[in-house]
Amino acid sequence: MVRVGILGASGYGGAELLRLLKGHPGVELVGFSSRKYEGKALSAAWPQLWDERLFLPQEEVVGRAEVVFLALPNGLAMGLVPEILRAGKRAIDLSGDFRLPPEVYEAWYGIPHKSPGLYQEAVYGLPELHRAELREARLVANPGCYVTAATLALAPLAAEGVLKGAFVVGLSGVSGAGREGEGTFFAEVNENLKPYKVGGTHRHIPEMELNLGRLLAQGHTPRTHGARGEVRLSFTPHLVPMIRGILVTAEAEVEGAWDQGKLDALYRGFYAGEPFVRVLEDLPQTKGTLGSNRADLKPLYEGRTGRVLVFAALDNLVKGMAGQAVQNLNLMLGFPEDTALPKEGLWP
Amino acid sequence: MVRVGILGASGYGGAELLRLLKGHPGVELVGFSSRKYEGKALSAAWPQLWDERLFLPQEEVVGRAEVVFLALPNGLAMGLVPEILRAGKRAIDLSGDFRLPPEVYEAWYGIPHKSPGLYQEAVYGLPELHRAELREARLVANPGCYVTAATLALAPLAAEGVLKGAFVVGLSGVSGAGREGEGTFFAEVNENLKPYKVGGTHRHIPEMELNLGRLLAQGHTPRTHGARGEVRLSFTPHLVPMIRGILVTAEAEVEGAWDQGKLDALYRGFYAGEPFVRVLEDLPQTKGTLGSNRADLKPLYEGRTGRVLVFAALDNLVKGMAGQAVQNLNLMLGFPEDTALPKEGLWP
Amino acid sequence: MVRVGILGASGYGGAELLRLLKGHPGVELVGFSSRKYEGKALSAAWPQLWDERLFLPQEEVVGRAEVVFLALPNGLAMGLVPEILRAGKRAIDLSGDFRLPPEVYEAWYGIPHKSPGLYQEAVYGLPELHRAELREARLVANPGCYVTAATLALAPLAAEGVLKGAFVVGLSGVSGAGREGEGTFFAEVNENLKPYKVGGTHRHIPEMELNLGRLLAQGHTPRTHGARGEVRLSFTPHLVPMIRGILVTAEAEVEGAWDQGKLDALYRGFYAGEPFVRVLEDLPQTKGTLGSNRADLKPLYEGRTGRVLVFAALDNLVKGMAGQAVQNLNLMLGFPEDTALPKEGLWP
Amino acid sequence: MVRVGILGASGYGGAELLRLLKGHPGVELVGFSSRKYEGKALSAAWPQLWDERLFLPQEEVVGRAEVVFLALPNGLAMGLVPEILRAGKRAIDLSGDFRLPPEVYEAWYGIPHKSPGLYQEAVYGLPELHRAELREARLVANPGCYVTAATLALAPLAAEGVLKGAFVVGLSGVSGAGREGEGTFFAEVNENLKPYKVGGTHRHIPEMELNLGRLLAQGHTPRTHGARGEVRLSFTPHLVPMIRGILVTAEAEVEGAWDQGKLDALYRGFYAGEPFVRVLEDLPQTKGTLGSNRADLKPLYEGRTGRVLVFAALDNLVKGMAGQAVQNLNLMLGFPEDTALPKEGLWP
Repeated sequence: MVRVGILGASGYGGAELLRLLKGHPGVELVGFSSRKYEGKALSAAWPQLWDERLFLPQEEVVGRAEVVFLALPNGLAMGLVPEILRAGKRAIDLSGDFRLPPEVYEAWYGIPHKSPGLYQEAVYGLPELHRAELREARLVANPGCYVTAATLALAPLAAEGVLKGAFVVGLSGVSGAGREGEGTFFAEVNENLKPYKVGGTHRHIPEMELNLGRLLAQGHTPRTHGARGEVRLSFTPHLVPMIRGILVTAEAEVEGAWDQGKLDALYRGFYAGEPFVRVLEDLPQTKGTLGSNRADLKPLYEGRTGRVLVFAALDNLVKGMAGQAVQNLNLMLGFPEDTALPKEGLWP
Repeated sequence: MVRVGILGASGYGGAELLRLLKGHPGVELVGFSSRKYEGKALSAAWPQLWDERLFLPQEEVVGRAEVVFLALPNGLAMGLVPEILRAGKRAIDLSGDFRLPPEVYEAWYGIPHKSPGLYQEAVYGLPELHRAELREARLVANPGCYVTAATLALAPLAAEGVLKGAFVVGLSGVSGAGREGEGTFFAEVNENLKPYKVGGTHRHIPEMELNLGRLLAQGHTPRTHGARGEVRLSFTPHLVPMIRGILVTAEAEVEGAWDQGKLDALYRGFYAGEPFVRVLEDLPQTKGTLGSNRADLKPLYEGRTGRVLVFAALDNLVKGMAGQAVQNLNLMLGFPEDTALPKEGLWP
Repeated sequence: MVRVGILGASGYGGAELLRLLKGHPGVELVGFSSRKYEGKALSAAWPQLWDERLFLPQEEVVGRAEVVFLALPNGLAMGLVPEILRAGKRAIDLSGDFRLPPEVYEAWYGIPHKSPGLYQEAVYGLPELHRAELREARLVANPGCYVTAATLALAPLAAEGVLKGAFVVGLSGVSGAGREGEGTFFAEVNENLKPYKVGGTHRHIPEMELNLGRLLAQGHTPRTHGARGEVRLSFTPHLVPMIRGILVTAEAEVEGAWDQGKLDALYRGFYAGEPFVRVLEDLPQTKGTLGSNRADLKPLYEGRTGRVLVFAALDNLVKGMAGQAVQNLNLMLGFPEDTALPKEGLWP
Repeated sequence: MVRVGILGASGYGGAELLRLLKGHPGVELVGFSSRKYEGKALSAAWPQLWDERLFLPQEEVVGRAEVVFLALPNGLAMGLVPEILRAGKRAIDLSGDFRLPPEVYEAWYGIPHKSPGLYQEAVYGLPELHRAELREARLVANPGCYVTAATLALAPLAAEGVLKGAFVVGLSGVSGAGREGEGTFFAEVNENLKPYKVGGTHRHIPEMELNLGRLLAQGHTPRTHGARGEVRLSFTPHLVPMIRGILVTAEAEVEGAWDQGKLDALYRGFYAGEPFVRVLEDLPQTKGTLGSNRADLKPLYEGRTGRVLVFAALDNLVKGMAGQAVQNLNLMLGFPEDTALPKEGLWP
């Protein structure tokens, strides 16, 4: 039994980590922290949990664990990870701290980086692209929901070398903004729909471009710190009145002559054998992924415009966050990759 | 591995049976039927499932299985169960067909009963009250969501012999009406709230009264076909704009002198050790039970009126339907009672 | 044109006052205030408004207006109204400050009353009961949503002298908690349902009992400060995942022999000619009142228990708040009572 | 008082026509029909209406009215309009029957056109572009929600002659699918999000291209049957879990050099003086238009890609349907264009 701990267990990412890790046969959950609930019982923070264990101080969680999940706001993991690694432990960070080259991070996040040297150590936590590296990783930079969806949607075109650019529209439920996210009051969100952080200002843009750039330069299974090409995306996120689920709708400009058959073959080939990516005949819908670690994709050749439409749906708190982190844990520890991870969800 | 089958696997109860039984280590799901989807793949009916097995004809499912779940509209199980039992198989019926004495059933459901003799054979499938009987059952009459919630809410008072009557208000999400339930279009249900089948017309009233009457006469662990006392309830259901979850709010008239301490002691004692009933300090909320087989209860002594308020929340498709059926299966087969049944749910 | 002003125009009550008063042909809106938005344009606070007039300081609004609406948190109007009245202006207060005898107010609201003497001056703003008094009022204590619904639901029984008590269940949308109401984040409210402030703790209980007590003692058209009898209610509110609308479901214990015909006759007679109360054949639903100043009622005789069920639905921000305030304004100023007030709403 | 009638008054478009026309000071509503509710009272179809007038047969409505609104499924108006016009009456058709050249209509709608000659008679009912023509119109082809939003979003660029193409994403609430629209059950729509009719198959594509083509060829105020240029759009609609409201997000490819200032000036100039189009500083949200006849727009220059993003929000049942029809009525009858049409809506 590997001893795991969670820092930041009173946010939504923490809740999903708790749900998944409590059902994991190969790990023992030895501690979890929350500044807000320290010293209180799990059930005080989480009505869905029937568990009276107490939230512990961060240091105690780190002290007890062999692998530490960090589900903290951006800017905190960079201060904690050095010590975790020095103590010979491994870390899976769910924030943005180690996903981008430090200078790019600083430019887009507006936070000075405290541990820039560790970026070279971090493995980018998208198993479909970086599986081999992840098996050896001591520090994983676990990507978030929009980037996971957009990258999975466009990766086959990028790895094939034909992706010239894309107009990416993101549609997200409210839980992506966190537990008491700004501007997420029910009366203002329900029966409402709005774009936000548009016009090239969303901080997940450089990460999407980096991922696709790696694929352009290196093909199907890039190294995190290998060569990268350039691709330019437009990204336009919207807030949708639902709790979970994101859908990415991308219109890609591609080189060469395509048709539906070639496109299907490319996508089915690229994701063949993947335990958590399904290429559909029909169009995906977010509810089809609720509570599961699956991403559902559908590429579509649009004859009228010669463009390629790709749709990607996933549960932002599972494949877009905690589930992916557990998938990375499984790779790091040598467990079957789908241990404790549902491929199928709830309906309705 | 026990071979189980599901009749009616394209409704919501069927979906939850599929979810739970696919994760059950002691059973093999050998078939499932649906008139609408016969010959089609599971994934055609269910976007959340990644499973291309085909829906089979009813007879084939029955033929292959040792235990048959019947998740069919009222009035159908009564025609199928005799043959299932004759073939030496066991049946768990999720409809109302075997929950009431046949003459009561006919009066409230308006359906002539085809197998009235089997009522004596049926064990009422509420594990908290009928655990011992269920271990031996060949035919289980699995109760629904409102009755489970109202019975669990008032059982301690009834078993204590102090329950004189109650005003029971039911608040239900939409999935209780079934997959394409009448009057459940989004534009007419969202941002709306309405009572329905009020004034003593809801067919679950006699079942609640029967359950509480048994407790009044027999105490804590009644026999399905034992003596029963009489209790009269008012029941007023409402449709709430959410998918899953029901809440029962009951105001009980009780004999004797009560206070909060006595009440808490009664409820905690009554449900001590129950794997799926939690007596809370705080008020329950439906989201706390989402996806789990748990019921959350809170009794409250109301000093101003001398009445007892009880709140009960559960997921109508799990503890109020499919999860309870699997709990009964576990009892019948001698598995640990919580096998494949989550005590904790998803949030948010 | 009567000059009117609004204090507290950036809350939901203020938004509805703005909507209704901007369409009122007999008044001129001369100012509106908001601590948060002072000096900013209306459209900065309200995306639905196309109006660049600025929020003014409170004193300026009061200075310009002949009639002042106070849509402020509890405890503020009591400090402002004395001066408004001294200046010869009239006031309609939407808070609880003048609805209850000061000693009762202090006990339930926990706020020392600064102007206890003004209670005798205040007319209770429920037009269906206090129409004549309201025509002469200088200060109106405008009731809120739950109390309006519960009072209208039970008034005919109280005025008839047969109401012994009632179990009142309140079901409310989220906007009743205000613009950024505590515990109203989308991800925690949607797909959730919960009771709150139960067990005789909700501060609207004494107001309901006071209203019904006046009717018991004085009959159909009581005086605010006349005699009152006693009635004891249980009140159990719940939060429902919708924005607008409340439903009150009351089970009343009544004296004498009743049947559906007598009950219908009582209610239809009591509300005959009322412009904003409709007694339905069918059950009410909240969406039927959306955006309108109407309350929909349905009394139902429940033969099995001998109790009377009454359902009342209304839009909490209109008949339960701003619309009722405008109805009172119309009475005070001698306009037709329904001026600028929709009897019919939006669907869906 | 002009006598108006509504054919198809039991659908959502009919409900909004009823709401708006009942408040119109210059018209008398002389009749309304519904196959389903013929002979029944308005309140039987519509819980929000307090109106016991009866639904009449179609012929009787037509017989009484001077202007007839047709809010019927596609394919019916083409059979009714000839006789209405022959009788010297005027018609406003809310269906697609007269919006497209008959051969284009037949290709995209799959319905043989019964009155192809009338297309030359029909004026396209978008007041912002065809105001002068509408004043003289006998037959108006009233456009729907997606086309109104997309056309208003891109019209300034097309009229300026710089629009080369656009990727248009549509996001719609459920009421756009009609009262019991296929696939709109609450349990399957809530907490779900999905694309539909994608890949160039949605029948509103040719109408958008026609509108923008007219602007390209004719500039700001085109004639319905004048010259047209060519523009090619991709259109990708999605179903969002809300009742009302649509948002169109368009990424336009444009000629020439642009920046935010030039773009704002173009849009503000183009819509200067329009009573129902607002060009915002901030991003629009659908709730800001709820219940109003307003469209909110925001153009945005995206420096990273050189593309122009445009967002357009409106209430699909008002500016996208019934409100626009009343706006056209006002033009036809010489009433002020905003008579009975709210510029401001409800919040929340």
